[in-house]
Amino acid sequence: MKNHRYFLLTKGRICGIINVVLSIKIIYVGKFKEQFYTEAASEYIKRLGGYCKIEVAEIPEHRLPDKPSEAQIALALEKESAAIKAKIPSGAVTVALCIEGSEMDSRELSVFIMEKTGQGVSKLCFVLGGSFGLHDDVKSSADFKLSMSKMTFPHNLARVMLLEQLYRAFKIAEGGKYHK
Amino acid sequence: MKNHRYFLLTKGRICGIINVVLSIKIIYVGKFKEQFYTEAASEYIKRLGGYCKIEVAEIPEHRLPDKPSEAQIALALEKESAAIKAKIPSGAVTVALCIEGSEMDSRELSVFIMEKTGQGVSKLCFVLGGSFGLHDDVKSSADFKLSMSKMTFPHNLARVMLLEQLYRAFKIAEGGKYHK
Repeated sequence: MKNHRYFLLTKGRICGIINVVLSIKIIYVGKFKEQFYTEAASEYIKRLGGYCKIEVAEIPEHRLPDKPSEAQIALALEKESAAIKAKIPSGAVTVALCIEGSEMDSRELSVFIMEKTGQGVSKLCFVLGGSFGLHDDVKSSADFKLSMSKMTFPHNLARVMLLEQLYRAFKIAEGGKYHK
Repeated sequence: MKNHRYFLLTKGRICGIINVVLSIKIIYVGKFKEQFYTEAASEYIKRLGGYCKIEVAEIPEHRLPDKPSEAQIALALEKESAAIKAKIPSGAVTVALCIEGSEMDSRELSVFIMEKTGQGVSKLCFVLGGSFGLHDDVKSSADFKLSMSKMTFPHNLARVMLLEQLYRAFKIAEGGKYHK
């Protein structure tokens, strides 16, 4: 890890720097299918390693028939929910990614992460669902619900988008020209 | 092209099918740097080829110093703007991608495209800027300004996101399980 300085923020302005290591865990449901998304995710995971302890955990997606019923989907999400909860680190501030969550711009996400760190939070956990999203139980027990877009993206692309935004959050806090 | 049927829509509901070929041109500023984004874009371009005549045009990004002044950025965007305008097909309905544009969900984008087709539009042109976005002139002369997210994504990733949304738009109109 090249850098594990963190920025103490007051109302979004840097007011100090502390040396702590923030752990970020990303829990996602379903496998990466396309090689290009796997490579994109690996690239951002590598870059994030310079700023935090990053860990990803893959939960297998529950198999469903071609035209699943509402009840079959609900049961699958419930099973995935139990697997997700077992992977959430104790004491972590949890962010569930879902379309009905609040939208933040990149700067607001950066401030959110840096403010949590400034408040002494050392573990953040982001949870991304599979094709049918997340069970209500995961969403309601999360500390924050985040939406990256009104649009629906395939979950593999959504993972790359999240990883890029996390990397961008650190680059914004650090300053420099990545975020213009 | 496997399929070039289009769906006539009234208030978002399919009321007929016509056989026309919609041309979609994507004009973007700057090169693809990462191989995985190039491959992701190629995959969606290939898939879109089954639904429309798809063309992409790359405009070179104007070189700027490391810490460009506002005036240098403005001049670069102006030069890019002239190059973009020269590539917009005559008679095309133009959509400029920019953060201050209107957000649509995937279904609304699908309805937007299918309604335009139903109204006899045969050419759509989407314009994506480079690192510093688009010149005001491009944005104000576009027929529509679209924002995919409040978040800022690298322009290469934004291109992949747009291509995926265009592909999704056709899959939504066609029905089936791609968009759940």
